[in-house]
Amino acid sequence: MRATIMHRAGDVGIETVPDAHLIESTDAVVRVTRACICGSDLWPYASMEPSEPGQSMGHEAIGVVEDVGAEVRTVKRGDVVVMPFAFSDGTCAFCHEGLHTACVHVGFFGNNGMNGAQAEALRVPFADGTLFALPVGEDDALMPSLLTLSDVMGTGHHAAVVAKVGPGKRVAVVGDGAVGLCGVIAAKRLGAEQIIIMGRHEDRIALAREFGATDVVSERGEEAVERVRELTGGFGAHSVLECVGLGQSTETAIGIARPGGAVGRVGVPQEATMPASQPAFYGNITVGGGPAPVRAYIEELLPDVLEGRIEPGRVLDRTVDLDGVPDGYRAMADRESIKVMVQP
Amino acid sequence: MRATIMHRAGDVGIETVPDAHLIESTDAVVRVTRACICGSDLWPYASMEPSEPGQSMGHEAIGVVEDVGAEVRTVKRGDVVVMPFAFSDGTCAFCHEGLHTACVHVGFFGNNGMNGAQAEALRVPFADGTLFALPVGEDDALMPSLLTLSDVMGTGHHAAVVAKVGPGKRVAVVGDGAVGLCGVIAAKRLGAEQIIIMGRHEDRIALAREFGATDVVSERGEEAVERVRELTGGFGAHSVLECVGLGQSTETAIGIARPGGAVGRVGVPQEATMPASQPAFYGNITVGGGPAPVRAYIEELLPDVLEGRIEPGRVLDRTVDLDGVPDGYRAMADRESIKVMVQP
Repeated sequence: MRATIMHRAGDVGIETVPDAHLIESTDAVVRVTRACICGSDLWPYASMEPSEPGQSMGHEAIGVVEDVGAEVRTVKRGDVVVMPFAFSDGTCAFCHEGLHTACVHVGFFGNNGMNGAQAEALRVPFADGTLFALPVGEDDALMPSLLTLSDVMGTGHHAAVVAKVGPGKRVAVVGDGAVGLCGVIAAKRLGAEQIIIMGRHEDRIALAREFGATDVVSERGEEAVERVRELTGGFGAHSVLECVGLGQSTETAIGIARPGGAVGRVGVPQEATMPASQPAFYGNITVGGGPAPVRAYIEELLPDVLEGRIEPGRVLDRTVDLDGVPDGYRAMADRESIKVMVQP
Repeated sequence: MRATIMHRAGDVGIETVPDAHLIESTDAVVRVTRACICGSDLWPYASMEPSEPGQSMGHEAIGVVEDVGAEVRTVKRGDVVVMPFAFSDGTCAFCHEGLHTACVHVGFFGNNGMNGAQAEALRVPFADGTLFALPVGEDDALMPSLLTLSDVMGTGHHAAVVAKVGPGKRVAVVGDGAVGLCGVIAAKRLGAEQIIIMGRHEDRIALAREFGATDVVSERGEEAVERVRELTGGFGAHSVLECVGLGQSTETAIGIARPGGAVGRVGVPQEATMPASQPAFYGNITVGGGPAPVRAYIEELLPDVLEGRIEPGRVLDRTVDLDGVPDGYRAMADRESIKVMVQP
């Protein structure tokens, strides 16, 4: 079968690899019908050290179950399923608490040797705990939005939950990538009164406005902080969604938070320390977040997708087949595309 | 009148200063009957740059109202009052939200030129918003415990609240100073199932055990992290109270938190950045806290003090008069005393 393999920064291609197959009795094999390229795939695309045999890429998928191990109970051959970016056993204390990304058996697709979803098929460990069967056919018109439940919509929602978004809250979203845009959707859905999107890409800002952003701040650094303060009655945002992961963006996120406010981080942090420890302390600002337990959120978000109340699939502004994946990486790195859908 | 003045690191003494008097119509003048030396006073005692005319010290007090401005309504001459370490107007949005330390008029006693409580008397701005009248006489036997409501008990409680302590939770307290010990009281009071005190001073550990600590960890760094993991079924503590403020202690606090857990910081951070940004992220650990809104907590904690259910005053293990204040600083700096009460 064919899969996307990255060997080093900038070197990503389609290769023939052994067919995905069951290894454990709790596995499933899923034929991928839709996958994506993620903003987080751009970090290794920019900086990966040479590696052989390379890394199989991709961690977001919808597909059809082709085979299941003897112990699999809740999904069966032929099911159309959404696959969260992390696998989880569904039975441990953390899964029961809804923090599937801390599962005692957690692993991440397309990472650390695990097979990836930008491929014709992949092996899914702990199929019962990981996969979620969808009540639609494999080519349903809602596929792009359903696909975002595997990562970016659940991740934007996680940022909003951790940042304590709710009715009447003033919210700021740092970053106008796919996750930031889904953060706008999540903030609107949770009842935010004001949603400030911080970014400078015209196409993304336009989409953010359609998703419910009420204000735009294109400044950066100290100027951005001042602008958000002006827009929020002088005090800052109750809830800040940090959807970038750089030191500078985190410093801005803390700087624009209202005293007593909360920052929800979902941008993968690229630095070992967090800035602005003292401003966060003196403002009693809470900083939380991490890899989103998207498996836990599917049940809550799915009805809104199925009934068309939210359309996160609109962040997928380009579709490629497997051969088009390398150019998809390039297009996202060059900011030509917000997020690329892969139809193997 | 006489007051405690610090001129530079190590140079603290009792001086004659102009009598405290009303300036604004919302002020009160309080004759101090009890004050304390705070662990946070030891930071300038260790490192203050030379300053003239020096800083009037102390931010925790109980006293008797001697005079009030024309606009003061809720406290009157003769009232025995507890004075939180920060003054607050009691009317702004933040005071209404219970975050008095972010009041739009906030200020800190014994800091930045503001008069201090290690003195015969002091001026209290925004008397209505700041002072809390107590239903006891000025020499009540409960004075030490009531005095802790001005800072350390409220601060330990804040750490516990931010760290989401509750019934069934496993809690760790980093730091065995007065605030850490009050954190143990707070954790017990809020229903924690397990309370691990981290420290190595025998007298403090013994007191922590009397306050409800179930386990003691005297290791530091990576060894401490391993020890707490062992004690908590392998995963760490749900709630961590950071009561020190150093980079190392903060790194430990994050390291011992369970995935999905919360760290409540009340130790004043001595460094510009926060360590362990990536471990905190990958564990979905929330870090919050800051200057405690002790004014907001008095109402909740007071009945437990008055009825003897909690005895935070036991952290005050030495009493001095004003002349004894300089030696009180020395005794706390030398770890001879946990916390010194001042009876002017």
